[in-house]
Amino acid sequence: HLSKGMQTVTLIPGDGIGPEISSAVVKIFQAANAPVSWEERNVTAIKGPGGRWMIPPDAKESMDRSKIGLKGPLKTPIAAGHPSMNLLLRKTFDLYANVRPCISIEGYKTPYTDVDLVTIRENTEGEYSGIEHQIVDGVVQSIKLITENASRRIAEYAFEYARNNQRSSVTAVHKANIMRMSDGLFLRKCREVAESYKDIKFTEMYLDTVCLNMVQDPTQFDVLVMPNLYGDILSDLCAGLIGGLGVTPSGNIGANGVAIFESVHGTAPDIAGLDLANPTALLLSGVMMLRHMGLHDHAHKIQKACFDTIREKKVLTKDLGGNSKCSEFTADICRRVQDLD
Amino acid sequence: HLSKGMQTVTLIPGDGIGPEISSAVVKIFQAANAPVSWEERNVTAIKGPGGRWMIPPDAKESMDRSKIGLKGPLKTPIAAGHPSMNLLLRKTFDLYANVRPCISIEGYKTPYTDVDLVTIRENTEGEYSGIEHQIVDGVVQSIKLITENASRRIAEYAFEYARNNQRSSVTAVHKANIMRMSDGLFLRKCREVAESYKDIKFTEMYLDTVCLNMVQDPTQFDVLVMPNLYGDILSDLCAGLIGGLGVTPSGNIGANGVAIFESVHGTAPDIAGLDLANPTALLLSGVMMLRHMGLHDHAHKIQKACFDTIREKKVLTKDLGGNSKCSEFTADICRRVQDLD
Ligand SMILES: CC(C)[C@H](C(=O)O)[C@@H](O)C(=O)O
Ligand SMILES: CC(C)[C@H](C(=O)O)[C@@H](O)C(=O)O
Repeated sequence: HLSKGMQTVTLIPGDGIGPEISSAVVKIFQAANAPVSWEERNVTAIKGPGGRWMIPPDAKESMDRSKIGLKGPLKTPIAAGHPSMNLLLRKTFDLYANVRPCISIEGYKTPYTDVDLVTIRENTEGEYSGIEHQIVDGVVQSIKLITENASRRIAEYAFEYARNNQRSSVTAVHKANIMRMSDGLFLRKCREVAESYKDIKFTEMYLDTVCLNMVQDPTQFDVLVMPNLYGDILSDLCAGLIGGLGVTPSGNIGANGVAIFESVHGTAPDIAGLDLANPTALLLSGVMMLRHMGLHDHAHKIQKACFDTIREKKVLTKDLGGNSKCSEFTADICRRVQDLD
Repeated sequence: HLSKGMQTVTLIPGDGIGPEISSAVVKIFQAANAPVSWEERNVTAIKGPGGRWMIPPDAKESMDRSKIGLKGPLKTPIAAGHPSMNLLLRKTFDLYANVRPCISIEGYKTPYTDVDLVTIRENTEGEYSGIEHQIVDGVVQSIKLITENASRRIAEYAFEYARNNQRSSVTAVHKANIMRMSDGLFLRKCREVAESYKDIKFTEMYLDTVCLNMVQDPTQFDVLVMPNLYGDILSDLCAGLIGGLGVTPSGNIGANGVAIFESVHGTAPDIAGLDLANPTALLLSGVMMLRHMGLHDHAHKIQKACFDTIREKKVLTKDLGGNSKCSEFTADICRRVQDLD
């Protein structure tokens, strides 16, 4: 059983570099005395009764109990009809909000400075409904499903997030000039919810216009809320502005506190096991997780240590422009975390 | 009737700043002795028999004869159920390929240099099918329609374009990991067509990955081909990299030489009639048009004059960082065009 004040977190190390970066995060959490007890689970899709793909029961059971997960990258199985494990997890736990803060990292040079925005993506429906048909030979349709409930829920999440994180504006991103009914419904719900948040400025913008404005001046954006596919696109675009998926955290949030935080980069099989991987994205996802758990001091300490290491440029992994090993980068962050005590 | 060698072009000046920038283009073409005879037509949607929206018969008739159009911005009517005039034109003439070259302009500073790519967007189906339903109250679906024919046609266009424009690679942009049937069909057709163009390198990439890589290093891309909505997004993103819609040309290409070239920026009603607008996007669309008509010398002369004016930075409109009027900018280009003779 747990010592006093400890909270259980389900750790899904994942594939490829997943185990290395996960153990880096575990070490740093330990150095920070974060009151977290890890329950490690493997997630490989298995076939359940009736042939439906599902995640392993012991992983599901752990998540059901802990309610909080931290996960590394999972490889996408190539078998036909096999679902993406990332999507299966989001679906299994109804993690309806995908939250990705994109904040410029001091000392890590990109063409942009002062980026400070958050994309909030509807994570359960839209273009990801999975409903597709062949009408006749050579004619295929995919269905984008938009519901009033999911649209209201994500809009409410975005405004609550803005309010709780001292952010001043929410922009709804859409193509309601083209998809008048579906994006129209999404937009209408955003407008309705906005009515209850007079302290937050609400604007709406076409997705194409957002992309154009984003690469010209990302500092004009704050919180952005949007349907599933647009979020997939925009969150990657924004990650690119601040240095890529190796440094961008992500959280998938459901109802009643359930959440899985994950690094969204790949499994990097080419460098797996070589102690070369960069654990920053997973570590910063862990920081988001600590905030979600109310552990703000630990979150602050770890984040500061990580950013200090990057800013000082002395101990960096290869992708960050240095030539240190994952373990050295990790040790440098651990040392700083301890110095902060 | 036309003097020898003259070709008729339907000119659709458009709304807002449309007339000003159109007459700027007409002046520059004249200075360059371009053998073009303009047939000016107004395009406002009218209701045809059966209540269907259509473009005015005299505009349709002119285009049917000339086969080539140059158009300024058209305002999107606010009346419910009223179609976008831009989309109605693309549909009326089955302009299936939307082509947008994005090439860094020397002297016009943006965070990127050496961008030199072309987005080729399927322009007739996909998410723009216009088919939407309300299933039950609060549940809406939009249909993304992908056909074998349209996919093959746009893939063939992209590879032909690459070959004819000395470009070395084509990247198919998709989300076939999510929309397995529809984007899967699109991708399959691209792969099939690629087989016949062994001189052109073929790659495929997820849309989100393209967006991320694009903002990190756009120079890695050459020709990109994609379904309708992805093209809407990516073409705006890429325009942003080189300075925005004020400097990016666009062509909508159909079968049998039919084509409409257009500036894709808005009507800018706030500065309409004030001689402040920047005609560059429409002018460069006109240059694309001249190439399409086989008038390469005239195209080259006008493009060089325009880029020289921008590079010298002495006579620039406000949006380009100067304080000259549209007429002064136009006169400077005319002078250079004549000097090139
Ligand atoms: C792995 C893939 C299915 C996923 C998506 O398309 O949502 C990824 O791109 C993401 O953004 O998390
Ligand atoms: C005006 C609008 C309907 C259009 C589109 O969405 O295609 C525009 O954004 C474009 O890219 O030409």
